[in-house]
Amino acid sequence: MTEVFNFCAGPAMLPKAVMTKAQNEFINWNDTGSSVMELSHRSSIYMAMAAEAEADLRDLMAIPDNYKVLFCHGGGRGQFSAVPLNLLPQGKSADYIVNGSWSKAAAAEAKNFGDINVINIREERSDGATSLTAVNQWPLNNDAAYVHYCPNETVDGIEINDIPDTHGVPLVADMSSTILSHEIDVTKFGLIYAGAQKNIGPSGLTLVIVHEDLLGHAQLATPCIMNYQTSANNDSMYNTPPTYSWYLAGLVFKWLKELGGVKAIAKINKEKADLLYQTIDSSNFYTNNIEQQYRSKMNIPFWLTDESLNEKFLIQAEQQGLTALKGHRIVGGMRASIYNAMPIEGVQALVDFMKKFEKGAR
Amino acid sequence: MTEVFNFCAGPAMLPKAVMTKAQNEFINWNDTGSSVMELSHRSSIYMAMAAEAEADLRDLMAIPDNYKVLFCHGGGRGQFSAVPLNLLPQGKSADYIVNGSWSKAAAAEAKNFGDINVINIREERSDGATSLTAVNQWPLNNDAAYVHYCPNETVDGIEINDIPDTHGVPLVADMSSTILSHEIDVTKFGLIYAGAQKNIGPSGLTLVIVHEDLLGHAQLATPCIMNYQTSANNDSMYNTPPTYSWYLAGLVFKWLKELGGVKAIAKINKEKADLLYQTIDSSNFYTNNIEQQYRSKMNIPFWLTDESLNEKFLIQAEQQGLTALKGHRIVGGMRASIYNAMPIEGVQALVDFMKKFEKGAR
Repeated sequence: MTEVFNFCAGPAMLPKAVMTKAQNEFINWNDTGSSVMELSHRSSIYMAMAAEAEADLRDLMAIPDNYKVLFCHGGGRGQFSAVPLNLLPQGKSADYIVNGSWSKAAAAEAKNFGDINVINIREERSDGATSLTAVNQWPLNNDAAYVHYCPNETVDGIEINDIPDTHGVPLVADMSSTILSHEIDVTKFGLIYAGAQKNIGPSGLTLVIVHEDLLGHAQLATPCIMNYQTSANNDSMYNTPPTYSWYLAGLVFKWLKELGGVKAIAKINKEKADLLYQTIDSSNFYTNNIEQQYRSKMNIPFWLTDESLNEKFLIQAEQQGLTALKGHRIVGGMRASIYNAMPIEGVQALVDFMKKFEKGAR
Repeated sequence: MTEVFNFCAGPAMLPKAVMTKAQNEFINWNDTGSSVMELSHRSSIYMAMAAEAEADLRDLMAIPDNYKVLFCHGGGRGQFSAVPLNLLPQGKSADYIVNGSWSKAAAAEAKNFGDINVINIREERSDGATSLTAVNQWPLNNDAAYVHYCPNETVDGIEINDIPDTHGVPLVADMSSTILSHEIDVTKFGLIYAGAQKNIGPSGLTLVIVHEDLLGHAQLATPCIMNYQTSANNDSMYNTPPTYSWYLAGLVFKWLKELGGVKAIAKINKEKADLLYQTIDSSNFYTNNIEQQYRSKMNIPFWLTDESLNEKFLIQAEQQGLTALKGHRIVGGMRASIYNAMPIEGVQALVDFMKKFEKGAR
């Protein structure tokens, strides 16, 4: 069959080399005669692998020793609850920056656990373009328990590249769709979380990188599996972790290190995004209305000027092995999610197809 | 290498036929050119598989239409919080039956979310045997919001075969280690939950089977991923589910159906347990002190009369491909977990080894 390039926003494609290795050792991992998913999380061989995965992640992201790395259950949405449960004491409020679907959902969920101050930074321009309030103009509350934002909005294709200066208030970021895609300075953040199913591994695993000072303040009614202090005290094994997902994440980290780390992949990611945006911008057959500086490098939504061709576009793309290009139901159109695992060949195949489709439709 | 029989209590071994099939289609599932873990949970092909897995489970357990089946994140411990958050309103209390480590932990966690009445039913006899209060003598509170119990205690090797009559109070059971191992009458329960990593699939997935009448009463501060009504309204896809684990669970359900269903596996499970208990009881080299009628058919702890031989026993067993036999740190000794996926050949190999080891040690 034709090689498939899968543009799904998540669960997303994983690196081919990782999948091949995982397949080869699927039923006999490290000569144990068992699958890694059949081993006790407390066996020495599993724990060594788990610790190595954490060490590789620390290395890739230059995570300082005074941050804990937690491998959690519950997905990104689980963190929508866990963050206020752990970081928002009674009598304090938290600032939630809203620039798209996921940051909006995070704020709505947080309201069940405390006083939330919603700050909308999205600006719809009169020329139809979508822009944002610049980070240094966000009306932040200096007394907030924390500031929450989502640097990359998967549905909307909006990315915030500048890291806001919160004047000492802990900054919390939902990096589900950008983690490991470009270099960031972890020390600027109080907490970073990410559902695995975009740049890390299969769904069901969530990473939390949290400054030690933020541990130990959870509300009483915090479910034990969401309590960061409990997880940190037990090396993320207070309850049985999603062991197979952790293993696959570890393989992805090794793959990324071999490739040259985050700096190397960031360069490739930029090339991929540039190639696709150039194709969109050089044609009036396709559009993307996000202001240049806020365009996502991971999730690129685009619209056909003639929307009656949407169905035809999707069917023909699928026939070429270019799958999952349908835009999110909230925004419509098309969306190409091009995370770390998407090779440049996949984006090249997509732009070749787009040009051919445009020609055929004219 | 020697065939490995893995007696781990969980994550546990999975059926060989399932693992072989999963390996074969690991990187190209159903001719999609992608792994099942790389597909959107909202793609029609994934959703069809997910629905089929649910239908197969309903079929295997004869789950009536007025029960919802939820595929959740968070493991069994997640349900320790989710149960009171969903079922325990202010002003009511819940009865928690304690007969071992897991039921005790469930009660302790529930106290963070409401008024919990702990009922200890464990009886240590003067002859050293462990017994339980009979189910019809449990001092239940007729006004309780629900009664929670754990029919099989994995650490302790204690099983309660009779289903208590709670006089209309919803009965909640943690069936993590017994689900699908023998027939049960689902209509006797308000809610059944089970972490997947023993009889269902890999860790990270949790099944909840809940009567419709119990939905819609969650406390305000219930994390969205733990809200049963929200999950039910969204076919367990309010957030991205652990898609690969769901798929593997589906394969396990198909395997079990082909094998003849729960009735057929229950017969094999009884044979396996009988074989092992007979070996223990016919020797004074090995002991198990649980009263006959409460002995677990899934997790069989046993002790060497001469505990100085423990290390030697474990090393030699491992050399024979009999792995993960070390008992839980709380109770010590040995433990053989023999869930559905453990073939009778594995138990036969274990008892052969036990007899040989005893002979050699005398």
